[in-house]
Amino acid sequence: MDLPAVSQRVRALHAQMTLDEKLAQLVGYWVDQGDDLVAPMAGEMATSTKYEDASAHGIGHLTRVYGTRPVDPVERAEWLWNEQRRLRERSRLGIGAIVHEECLTGLAAWKAATFPTPLAWGAAFDPELTEQVGAAIGRSMRELGIHQGLAPVLDVITDPRWGRVDECIAEDPYVVGTIGTAYVRGLQSSGVHATLKHFAGYSASQAGRNHAPVHMGRRRLQDVVLPPFEMAVRDGGVRSVMNSYAEIDGVPVASNPELLTELLREEWGFDGTVVADYFAVAFLHALHGVAADLGQAALLALRAGIDIELPTGDAFVGPLRERLATDPHGLADVDRAVLRVLAQKEELGLLDEDLSEPPTEVALDSPELRELARRSAEESVVLLSNDGMLPLGAVRSVALIGPNADAAESLMGCYSFANHVLAHHPGTALGFEIPTIAEALRVELPSASIEVERGCDVEDPDPAGIDAAVAAAARAEAAIVVVGDRAGLFGRGTVGEGNDVDDLELPGAQRRLVEAVVATGTPTVVVVVSGRPYAIGWMLEGPSAAGAVIQAFFPGEEGGPAIARILSGSSAPSGRLPVSLPRSAGAQPYTYLHPVLGGPTEITSADNTPVLPFGHGLTYTTFAREELDVADAATDGTLVASVRVSNTGERTGTDVVQLYARDVFASVTRPVAQLLAYQRVTLDPGESATVTFDVPATRLAFTGRDGRRIVEPGRVELWVGPSCAVRETEAAIELTGGTHALTADSPRSAVATVSPLVRESR
Amino acid sequence: MDLPAVSQRVRALHAQMTLDEKLAQLVGYWVDQGDDLVAPMAGEMATSTKYEDASAHGIGHLTRVYGTRPVDPVERAEWLWNEQRRLRERSRLGIGAIVHEECLTGLAAWKAATFPTPLAWGAAFDPELTEQVGAAIGRSMRELGIHQGLAPVLDVITDPRWGRVDECIAEDPYVVGTIGTAYVRGLQSSGVHATLKHFAGYSASQAGRNHAPVHMGRRRLQDVVLPPFEMAVRDGGVRSVMNSYAEIDGVPVASNPELLTELLREEWGFDGTVVADYFAVAFLHALHGVAADLGQAALLALRAGIDIELPTGDAFVGPLRERLATDPHGLADVDRAVLRVLAQKEELGLLDEDLSEPPTEVALDSPELRELARRSAEESVVLLSNDGMLPLGAVRSVALIGPNADAAESLMGCYSFANHVLAHHPGTALGFEIPTIAEALRVELPSASIEVERGCDVEDPDPAGIDAAVAAAARAEAAIVVVGDRAGLFGRGTVGEGNDVDDLELPGAQRRLVEAVVATGTPTVVVVVSGRPYAIGWMLEGPSAAGAVIQAFFPGEEGGPAIARILSGSSAPSGRLPVSLPRSAGAQPYTYLHPVLGGPTEITSADNTPVLPFGHGLTYTTFAREELDVADAATDGTLVASVRVSNTGERTGTDVVQLYARDVFASVTRPVAQLLAYQRVTLDPGESATVTFDVPATRLAFTGRDGRRIVEPGRVELWVGPSCAVRETEAAIELTGGTHALTADSPRSAVATVSPLVRESR
Repeated sequence: MDLPAVSQRVRALHAQMTLDEKLAQLVGYWVDQGDDLVAPMAGEMATSTKYEDASAHGIGHLTRVYGTRPVDPVERAEWLWNEQRRLRERSRLGIGAIVHEECLTGLAAWKAATFPTPLAWGAAFDPELTEQVGAAIGRSMRELGIHQGLAPVLDVITDPRWGRVDECIAEDPYVVGTIGTAYVRGLQSSGVHATLKHFAGYSASQAGRNHAPVHMGRRRLQDVVLPPFEMAVRDGGVRSVMNSYAEIDGVPVASNPELLTELLREEWGFDGTVVADYFAVAFLHALHGVAADLGQAALLALRAGIDIELPTGDAFVGPLRERLATDPHGLADVDRAVLRVLAQKEELGLLDEDLSEPPTEVALDSPELRELARRSAEESVVLLSNDGMLPLGAVRSVALIGPNADAAESLMGCYSFANHVLAHHPGTALGFEIPTIAEALRVELPSASIEVERGCDVEDPDPAGIDAAVAAAARAEAAIVVVGDRAGLFGRGTVGEGNDVDDLELPGAQRRLVEAVVATGTPTVVVVVSGRPYAIGWMLEGPSAAGAVIQAFFPGEEGGPAIARILSGSSAPSGRLPVSLPRSAGAQPYTYLHPVLGGPTEITSADNTPVLPFGHGLTYTTFAREELDVADAATDGTLVASVRVSNTGERTGTDVVQLYARDVFASVTRPVAQLLAYQRVTLDPGESATVTFDVPATRLAFTGRDGRRIVEPGRVELWVGPSCAVRETEAAIELTGGTHALTADSPRSAVATVSPLVRESR
Repeated sequence: MDLPAVSQRVRALHAQMTLDEKLAQLVGYWVDQGDDLVAPMAGEMATSTKYEDASAHGIGHLTRVYGTRPVDPVERAEWLWNEQRRLRERSRLGIGAIVHEECLTGLAAWKAATFPTPLAWGAAFDPELTEQVGAAIGRSMRELGIHQGLAPVLDVITDPRWGRVDECIAEDPYVVGTIGTAYVRGLQSSGVHATLKHFAGYSASQAGRNHAPVHMGRRRLQDVVLPPFEMAVRDGGVRSVMNSYAEIDGVPVASNPELLTELLREEWGFDGTVVADYFAVAFLHALHGVAADLGQAALLALRAGIDIELPTGDAFVGPLRERLATDPHGLADVDRAVLRVLAQKEELGLLDEDLSEPPTEVALDSPELRELARRSAEESVVLLSNDGMLPLGAVRSVALIGPNADAAESLMGCYSFANHVLAHHPGTALGFEIPTIAEALRVELPSASIEVERGCDVEDPDPAGIDAAVAAAARAEAAIVVVGDRAGLFGRGTVGEGNDVDDLELPGAQRRLVEAVVATGTPTVVVVVSGRPYAIGWMLEGPSAAGAVIQAFFPGEEGGPAIARILSGSSAPSGRLPVSLPRSAGAQPYTYLHPVLGGPTEITSADNTPVLPFGHGLTYTTFAREELDVADAATDGTLVASVRVSNTGERTGTDVVQLYARDVFASVTRPVAQLLAYQRVTLDPGESATVTFDVPATRLAFTGRDGRRIVEPGRVELWVGPSCAVRETEAAIELTGGTHALTADSPRSAVATVSPLVRESR
C-alpha cells in the first residue's frame, strides 16, 4: 500500500509515534456523551472510557464540544482553549484535537443562528446565496475554535418516506451538486473543513427506512447518486467525507473499499480524511453482522478507507489494538490513516494554532447572519397554488390557525440545535430570536385583527380544537392555516433522523383541520411548514381546495417574517419545488428522473404522477419563456442554449429558468426529463432577459453498457418551462461525432455556466 | 459465434432454408388477434399482416389458438390439424408450427379445468401435488396438439403492490424453485414444453409497478431472483424461457446478453429456446428507447439471446430483414436462433407429428382433473386466526355475506381463461362447473338456513348494501363474510396483470362491510379470496377482529367446495402463508429474507413488521415441534437436521415442518431467517413423527465480496417453528472447513431431501 504524500513535518511527527499515540489520532472523544444523547443506538453505544484515559496519548477529534448540550459558547470556548493547550503542552507529541460540530442549518450550538434546512436551499435554486450562508456559518465556527463541520448532506432524494429528507437538498443530482458544492466552498472559505454526508447511497434505502438496505446497480449509483459527491470533491475541493450507514447490495459502505478508496481517492483524487458516521464502525459488527467482533469491524473499516472513528473510539482503540497483535498487516492501514489525520491537522493550521486568547465575545446571530437567514428563507418559499387571494393586501381580520402558526420550533430542521439538542432540555431558553409566523404577521399586518387558534396538534390525532378553529375562521375575512411537521429524532417529532413514515398524509388531525376550515367558505391559505413533501393533492384541487397553498421547508429563524412578508405581498415568492410533490406513500419511491416505464403508463393501474412536478412554483406575476435556441453540438463539445424569459405580469418577480433535456434513444434507458441548467432571474413588469447557458455535453453522460461513462451521439430534445413537466418552449438537436467516453480526467461533473443576461424592457 | 449442436436432420433442414424461411421460423402468428385482445398495448401493437402472408414461408409458432377467444376445443382442433397439415404439405420445407398456450391455472382454453393460482401452490407447500397438476394440464394440452405452455412464473414475490403477485408462487426463492420445478417436471412429463417466466427480475420493479425499472445489484439478483430459474433449468430440465419485460439498472432484459446467453446458456447449460414476452422486442424501441427502430430492436434482442418473437413477427420479419441488409453479421444470430427452433420442433416430435386424426372428444375437465383441483384448493387454504368458532359444526343459521360469497369468477386467477379472455365475451357460458362458496356451503351444511347478502361490490365503494348485510348477520347464528379481489387485466379488476395498487386496504367498501358485520356481535368468519395479500391486521386483532379469518388465494374450480368443507370441519386447513401479510402499502417493499436493518429496528419509526409472518397458518389441531438436532457440517457437506413434530390436539391435522437458518456473521449481510427445507406431515391426534432433512450446505451459499457464490465457515443458527418468526426449537452449529466456492458444476440449487418419517403414537 502506498502511504499518502505528506509534508516533512508530518512525516517526522508520525515517525516518533507509538502505536497508542497513532490509534488515539484515529478517534474522537465525546466529552459530553451521556444517556440522553440522541444518535442511533447512542444508549447501547455509550462509552465507559474516561476522557483522561482516552486522551492520555492525544486525541484525533473532540466531538461536538458546543453542540451536545446547551453550554454558553464563551464559557465553553475557554474550556476548549484550555483543553487544546493541555493537549499541546502536556501530551508527549503536543498535537491538538480537531473540533467538529454539526452545522447543517447553521452551527448547531446554543444561541447560534438557525438557517433554513437544506431542502429550502434546494427550493431557492441559488448557489451563490448558499455559498454566502456557508461562509458565514464557517466564520462563527472558526471563531469558536471549530475546525470541521459535518455538512453538507449530498444524498439525492429518492423517497419522501425517509425521515432525513429535510437534510437533503433536492431530488435532482445536479441541483444537489451545485448547491452542495457552493456550501462547501463557502464553509471552507472560512477555514473550516466541510464533510460530505453520506457517501454514498443512504437516501435510497428500501421503503425509505433509515439504515435499511440499498438496492441498486452500478449504473444508478454512478449516474444519480455519485455525481454530487464527485462535484464537491473535484470542483469544490472538499476536505472530508463521511460514510453512509447503509449497505448497498449486501456490502455496508463502511466496509467498502471500492467506494471509499478506489473511487473516492484513486479515481477522484480526494486526499482529505474519511470519517465514520457516528458508531458506524461498531455497527459493522452489531447491526450489519459482517464482522464477528469490534476488532474485525475496525480493521474492515480502516482497510476500506475510514480514517477516523466517530464519535468515540469504540473499535479503533482497544479492539483494534488487540486485533493488530494477530494481524500485523493492519499496521500499514493505521499508518495511512494517521498520516491523513496529521496532514489535515497541519492543513487546518491546528499544529500551530494560537491558543493564547479564547474569544470573550462571539456574535453567533449577528444582523449579518440574520439578513442571510432572511434572504435564504424568503427565496425558498414555494407558492404551490393561488386563486388570486394572495397576496392578502388590505385584509381586516385574519384567523391564523394550525399547530405551526405560533410555534418557533416548527420553523427549524432536525439538525438545528433547538430540535436536535435543546428539545431534551426543557426549560432552557432558545438563546436567540425566532419570531413565529403569528408574531411576524402581526408586525406585517398591523391594522388587521389576528385571531390565533391552534386547532390541533402536529402529531396528536385529537380533533377537539378543530371546532374553535372553524369558529374563528367563520368570523374572519381570511383564514391562514399553518400545518406541517415537527422535526425531531428517533421517535420524537414527525420528520427527521429516524422518523420515517409509511404514510404521506399530513400527520395527526391536520388534514381534518384544513378541510374543516376550507369548508367554512372563508377564503383560506394553507401554509405547509414541513421537512418532507406530503401528499397534499386534496388541498390543491377538489372539494377541499384552498385559495392558495404555500410550501415552506423549515425556513429557519427568519422564516416567520419571510412567510408573513410573502403572505402580505411585501415580497413575492420565488422558490421552486426541489422535489416532486408525492401522490401517495404507496407510489414511492418515485423520481422525476425516470425512464418512460418509471412513470405513469397504460401498463399499470397505479398512478404515480406527482401531485405537482419538480421545479413547480408560482409567484405574484407571470412569466413567458420563448424562443429556446440550441445548436447541434459535438458529444465532447458544449451545448449553447439561449431562451428569452419575460415578465408578463404586473409585479416584479423572480423566475427560476430551468433547462431540461431528454436523450430520446440511447444504448440504455434514459430519463424522460433531466435538468441541464438553471438560473434565477428577477425581472420587472414588461422586462425580458435572454438567458444563455453553456452546457458541456458531458452533462448528458451516462454509464454505458460496458460500465464507462459516455456521451452518445443522437437526438436530444430540450425545453424550458415552469417545471420539468411542461415544455413551454422546446428545441431538438443532434449530438454529433462519435461516442465520447469520459476519462478519469474529464470534467464529468461540469457545471453549466450562464452568460451575462441581456435585458430589454417593454 | 458457435452455432448450437443439432441433429443431422435439423442441420440438413436448415441448410436448405432461404432467409425468408428462416425468419418465419423465429416468429409467432396470432391468428385471432384483434382490437379486443388483452395484452400490454395490444391495441397499438395489432399486426396488419395477413396470416396467409405471414405463413407463406412457414411459421415458428401459432399463438394461443385455443386461448384467445371462446372457441369449441374440438372444432378448433380440427382447424388446427388442417392448418398443421397445410404447413407440412404445402409450405416448401413442410415444417409445422409450435402451438403455445397459457396454462398457469390450467389450460387457458374454453371449457378447460381451472386450478388454483400459483400463490395457492405456494400456500400448499406440496411440490408432489403441483407436479401431478402440471402433468394433468400437460395431458390435456398434448391431446389438443399444443406443444408449449407459457408457465410457470418463477418470479420471487417482493412487493404485494404488483398486480401479478397471484401468478407467482411465493416470497421465498426455495419454495418458488422447488414448486416451480415440480410444475415443469409435471408439464414436461406429458410431452409439453414448459416456459419459465419472467427471466429475470420482473417482480422487483420499482414500487411494484408493472414494467417499471428494477433496481438491484448483482448479489440480490444471484442470491434471490435467479435461484428458482437455475433450479428449473438444472434440476427441472426446462425447455423454454421467456424474458422479463423490465429493465434492470438501465438495461432491458430483452436486450441483455449477460442474462439471456452468458448466464442462462453458457453457465447453466440451457439449450432450449428463449421466447420473447408478448411485444417485448418492439418495446425495446417503443417503450425502453434503447433502439431507434424496430430493426435495431430485433437485432438487439436476437443478439442478446431471444430466439423467437411473440406473439407475432412485428420486428423479427420485415424490420429485421431490412436491418440485415446493412448488418450482415446479424445472419449468424438468425442462424443460431433458427437451429434452436428447429431442434425444439424435432424434440417435440413435431417434425413427424401424426396429423391424421384430430381428437373428436376431449376431456378438459375430467373427474381426475377435478379431484386434483379439489386437493390443490383444499391444501392451499390458510387459516390465519381462529378464536374457536371454526370449524362451524352444527350451526343452524348462517348469514353468508360479501361480494365473493356467491361469485364464481372470484375463485379464479388473472390467467384463467374465464378472467383473462371470457370476461371480454359477456353472455358466453363458462363451459365448466365452478360451484360458488354459497352453492358449496348449501351442500356442506344441508340443515342450516343460509341467507346470502352481497353487502357491497368488490371495487365500487358504494356502501348501500351494507345495511342489509348487517341485518342478515344480526339475524344469524354465525356470519361468514367473503371478501377479496376480482382478477382481471389492465384496469379491469383489482388484481392481475397491470392491476397494481398504491394502497393495500381491501378494495372498495369491503373493509366497512366487514367492520359493520363484526360490530353486530354475531360470531363472524372472514374469508379473503384474493390474488395478493392485503393489509388486514385490523380483522385479526383489535375492535374489528373477526372470530376467524381464512385466506384463500384464488383456489380454482373446486375452491368453493374446498372452502366450504374447511368451514364446516369436513376437512382441516393445512395451507401456510407463502408470503408475508403486509402491514401497509407504504411499508413496501418488504421480504422476510431481510438482514437486521431491513426489518423493524429502533433506528426507524416506520414499522414494517408483517401483520402475519411468512409460513404462518393454523389448523384445527395443535402441533409441538421439539428436539431439533443438527450436527456441525463442512462447508461443502450436508447438514442433517432432525426434528420431532407431534400432534398435541384432538384432530388429525397437517403441519408444514419448516426448517429455518441464520448465518450470524458473514462477509456480506445475510438475512435474519432463510427457509432451508420444508415438509408437509399429516399426523393423527397423539402421533409424533421425526422428520429428518438432508440439507446440502450449498443451500447457505451467497455471493461473496468477489462475486463468486460461496459457503463460508462459521456459526449458523437453525430453528423449526410455526412460521419464520418463531423459534419453537432451535440449535446452532458451526460450518467447518474453509470457504467453499461453488463452481459452474456445483449443485448450487440443491434441494433438501427428507428421510422416511419415523412415526410413533402416544
